[in-house]
Amino acid sequence: MGSLEAERTTTGWAARDPSGILSPYTYTLRNTGPEDVYIKVLCCGVCHSDVHQIKNDLGMSNYPMVPGHEVVGEVLEVGSAVTKFKVGDTVGVGAIVGCCRNCRPCKADVEQYCNKKIWSYNDVYTDGKPTQGGFAGAMVVEQKFVVKIPDGLEPEQAAPLLCAGVTVYSPLNHFGLKQSGLRGGILGLGGVGHMGVMIAKAMGHHVTVISSSNKKREEALEHLGADEYLVSSDSSRMQEAADSLDYIIDTVPVFHPLEPYLSLLKLDGKLILMGVINTPLQFLSPVVMLGRKSITGSFVGSMKETEEMLEFCKEKGLNSMIEVVKMDYVNQAIERLEKNDVRYRFVVDVAGSNLNQ
Amino acid sequence: MGSLEAERTTTGWAARDPSGILSPYTYTLRNTGPEDVYIKVLCCGVCHSDVHQIKNDLGMSNYPMVPGHEVVGEVLEVGSAVTKFKVGDTVGVGAIVGCCRNCRPCKADVEQYCNKKIWSYNDVYTDGKPTQGGFAGAMVVEQKFVVKIPDGLEPEQAAPLLCAGVTVYSPLNHFGLKQSGLRGGILGLGGVGHMGVMIAKAMGHHVTVISSSNKKREEALEHLGADEYLVSSDSSRMQEAADSLDYIIDTVPVFHPLEPYLSLLKLDGKLILMGVINTPLQFLSPVVMLGRKSITGSFVGSMKETEEMLEFCKEKGLNSMIEVVKMDYVNQAIERLEKNDVRYRFVVDVAGSNLNQ
Repeated sequence: MGSLEAERTTTGWAARDPSGILSPYTYTLRNTGPEDVYIKVLCCGVCHSDVHQIKNDLGMSNYPMVPGHEVVGEVLEVGSAVTKFKVGDTVGVGAIVGCCRNCRPCKADVEQYCNKKIWSYNDVYTDGKPTQGGFAGAMVVEQKFVVKIPDGLEPEQAAPLLCAGVTVYSPLNHFGLKQSGLRGGILGLGGVGHMGVMIAKAMGHHVTVISSSNKKREEALEHLGADEYLVSSDSSRMQEAADSLDYIIDTVPVFHPLEPYLSLLKLDGKLILMGVINTPLQFLSPVVMLGRKSITGSFVGSMKETEEMLEFCKEKGLNSMIEVVKMDYVNQAIERLEKNDVRYRFVVDVAGSNLNQ
Repeated sequence: MGSLEAERTTTGWAARDPSGILSPYTYTLRNTGPEDVYIKVLCCGVCHSDVHQIKNDLGMSNYPMVPGHEVVGEVLEVGSAVTKFKVGDTVGVGAIVGCCRNCRPCKADVEQYCNKKIWSYNDVYTDGKPTQGGFAGAMVVEQKFVVKIPDGLEPEQAAPLLCAGVTVYSPLNHFGLKQSGLRGGILGLGGVGHMGVMIAKAMGHHVTVISSSNKKREEALEHLGADEYLVSSDSSRMQEAADSLDYIIDTVPVFHPLEPYLSLLKLDGKLILMGVINTPLQFLSPVVMLGRKSITGSFVGSMKETEEMLEFCKEKGLNSMIEVVKMDYVNQAIERLEKNDVRYRFVVDVAGSNLNQ
């Protein structure tokens, strides 16, 4: 495990160029600073945004890039000032590993909105070196950005919670939508959508899955436990459902008209956007005004919310639907994810993979 | 004043067709029912939406139509079950004179969002007769939709508060934006915008007026007491002002891009739309998500909020800027209003006008 002084390497799987093909890559980890936690990665979820990053879809990718930001690991070593963790703890790391600590969002404990936040990978750390993610043997992360995985949550189950889970938990928490009895809509049934159904159901909500086709009806109702399934092109059912929902979590990652969904909302209902879409979305102002509705959105969640959410999921015995794969399958997994051919989240068994081949 | 049994007439100024030209029109008022208040109109504000209505811009106009929904009057007679008012009281009537009382908005005392609300004019009352507005000698209105004008508020000053005033007060109240020290933006400086500056200032906010040109700079800063003036085409000033506002009240009634204004908002900032715009508005989802911003809107205000707002304006000694005209000038006033040639609200001195010529 090395001393605090020795230079340490790890092997991850990195994209080398916008083809996004991952292959083994060995790099140096920083020494465990006073506030740092040195973590052996156990497993790591595969998120849609990983695909955008490795393929340079946003034009901001740097290579080699080791993706992965739904990381569960075991603590191997802690820095001298680390109080939250001890060797042997099972811990998680999400999308963010640094922030400025001085801005309004940082001071309000919503560091995910800090303009100087540091991403878990494809970013530059305070030491000037690139950050690398969780598709790797190990990571060194400042304790503030590490969470304890509660006993009783399996690492593979916990991994998708660290991004997809908190991404839906955070807006429900922030916008006062946690109490039971609410009626929620989940638009789109991918990784985040499936998590949305499960977390909303665990909160005691009446959940309607809204989809463009009937394809996922059985999935939604039988497997995920949704209460209703609404096909957006079925205008008579859509009309019947008008004015019935307190919120909609909109996970659709491409352009779509907002009016049909705004119409489903009650007075004061909220349309919560989760998809980064670079084509402008459109709506008519009266549809919003005449029901005091809000079009809003949110972005992952804070460390505090991540802790709360993990505790909530453990208490509720929430089990996300995952497909566990080894690292040598990751390129196929990414290909399948791009075709939405997964129910609902790939998790790479990093510790169980031979990372050097 | 007549007995409760006699049929009563009044003369108003009505539009007869989509030309929107108003001229004298005599019609019957219903007898004062148990819950009704018979009101002699003293004065009435002229709102932009009156222009849309008389000109059939929304395709839903019925003629003859007596507009006017910022009505201040004197109580001449009250029904047997009326407890809130007595003869001689100065009272106000706004945009709404009826609602269902059974729906969720009605039960939550936000009857302005009732789907069965009855508009003060260009609507059909429960007795099957058309409703007619405040550009008339008298109105009969159910007590629920009548507010007391607090002593010390001049009728002419109070009139614009009944629509424009409560239209800006209501969202600030509802969205938790009343406390002093907030930083607000007012986009557009017409009737509602000028009221927005004054009410926000009275709440102790730092107010930035945002406009497409420099034309209203002096108005905003010198006459209305705004703190800053921002020209939306001045990209360097706009950039400096990024991430600085808690809310923007957007009164622009035509298509405009939302991104520049969304960028001015802080984390959790709210863009509150006031303009009924029939061209879709556009925005990019990341701009909303990455600051958990909301695009929302609201529509007039409740009777409860109207009462609160009148009390608030009286306490703060708020004086709106008005131009008082006689009824025989109303057609010119409307023409000037269409050209934004008014600082900032016309109020018709109804009681001081000869309505028959």
